[in-house]
Amino acid sequence: MDWGTTNRRAYSIDGAGRVIATERDDQGLLAVSKGGFANSATAIRALFGDLPMLCAGMVGSVKGWAEVPYQRCPVDLESLAANLLWVEPGRTALVPGVCTIADGVGDIMRGEEVQLLGAVAAGLAPADALLCQPGTHCKWARMTDSRLAGFRTGMTGEIFALLRKHSLLADFLDGDVRDGDAFRDGVALAQKGALLGPLFAERASALLGIRAREEIAAHVSGLLIGSDVREQALEPGSCVHILADPALGCLYAAAIDQLGGRSVPIDSHAAFVAGITHIWRMIRADAS
Amino acid sequence: MDWGTTNRRAYSIDGAGRVIATERDDQGLLAVSKGGFANSATAIRALFGDLPMLCAGMVGSVKGWAEVPYQRCPVDLESLAANLLWVEPGRTALVPGVCTIADGVGDIMRGEEVQLLGAVAAGLAPADALLCQPGTHCKWARMTDSRLAGFRTGMTGEIFALLRKHSLLADFLDGDVRDGDAFRDGVALAQKGALLGPLFAERASALLGIRAREEIAAHVSGLLIGSDVREQALEPGSCVHILADPALGCLYAAAIDQLGGRSVPIDSHAAFVAGITHIWRMIRADAS
Repeated sequence: MDWGTTNRRAYSIDGAGRVIATERDDQGLLAVSKGGFANSATAIRALFGDLPMLCAGMVGSVKGWAEVPYQRCPVDLESLAANLLWVEPGRTALVPGVCTIADGVGDIMRGEEVQLLGAVAAGLAPADALLCQPGTHCKWARMTDSRLAGFRTGMTGEIFALLRKHSLLADFLDGDVRDGDAFRDGVALAQKGALLGPLFAERASALLGIRAREEIAAHVSGLLIGSDVREQALEPGSCVHILADPALGCLYAAAIDQLGGRSVPIDSHAAFVAGITHIWRMIRADAS
Repeated sequence: MDWGTTNRRAYSIDGAGRVIATERDDQGLLAVSKGGFANSATAIRALFGDLPMLCAGMVGSVKGWAEVPYQRCPVDLESLAANLLWVEPGRTALVPGVCTIADGVGDIMRGEEVQLLGAVAAGLAPADALLCQPGTHCKWARMTDSRLAGFRTGMTGEIFALLRKHSLLADFLDGDVRDGDAFRDGVALAQKGALLGPLFAERASALLGIRAREEIAAHVSGLLIGSDVREQALEPGSCVHILADPALGCLYAAAIDQLGGRSVPIDSHAAFVAGITHIWRMIRADAS
């Protein structure tokens, strides 16, 4: 189970690591009361059968079922498997999140580690690679020798959501966000290194008739995603494997390619299933 | 009258340009109904006497008393005086805002232009200068030959407010914001050119115990204000005149000095009074 803050996705996986059934719903942490996680798991078993369950994601945070301490980078699937927290002994376990500290700056993730390590374990990405997981908080992960060596998170998606919902720019951000001239103009602008100025200028440019109102959302998206990519300081031609749903993945791919990188899409569901299956097999091997 | 979105400040000014009385209240645009501006002006006259009134600021926007078209840079006090909108003939006028378009990017201001041009007219800043007005939207204005030649706005204060009210970081931003080690660390971090990554890292660093929770607000403030200053690409040693209330002005001064500039504080009220008095004298001279 990939159990996040807002949504969750359950996969029923057979012994060969194949997905038998999958279901996504909105029963993320925010929808479950503090003591309600066991009942919520029972409801899932009613759908999928009475099977053991591994849960990754924010469900292992202080606001989730129980808090599982972070594992510190470098991390591999073995260290995740060795540090599960069994909330229902022998039946249900939570996968730990991962933390990293570099140059006195900390970073954390919960749930993404299973996808990242699973992508490499399944051969979807090489053992040494840069992986990108766009989302509310975009993860950029450096894999070394099949381990998660370090990572950095961009607040990109959350800033876009804040602007769209609560800012003075909100009324101007109802246009479609898709790859195109406006998006790519935003990416090019991001390359200049400024963000606070260009964000204010979006509204001004619309009011002055310099940019069509319906293009502002795509332009702001390009500016933010372009800034996120710029902050990675990619080597020219370097390869970035992207784990995301197709719509958001496409935008990141366009920005990465425009800024001199080379994007490769990966199936994020397949990566998660591979990661969680590997963890399960390690527990079974230990138990036998 | 400096009549903004949230607040307004009225000054009663004598023939010599001296302030006889001043009053600040929360009767900004948001508190006045569309047809209620004339009554609101009557109430002001009841306090200060039955005098002619010049109003600058968002009161001249589409959401204010009436919309006054922007004057395009370069702009001086003469062009503002020549383009007043009289909403009560001979009695009450609105000062136009200013726009600029540079490299295909637009920017706008309403109200700040009176302060900026007033600062130079009063000799508080030289005829050729870079002026900074911190606030929800921070203005950086280039004065050339006593005229407002161009400007750029940073969304700095609004982004900080959004983070504080609505973001995942909100719970971590209740500490004091003041100049000190945490603030200056944030400014130094801003100089590296990244923002989306460091913003996410604030929460992670607090959760991992790398930074004390009560220091996060000052550190984020330093990061944002430092980014705003960095986006100006100041020449080393270049002078920046700051028009702001002392608390916020101090933070910008610290960041400007830390990043190689030289800050000079200016009394923003005196600048506004000088600007509006000059405009009034020009109208009187034209009328006589």
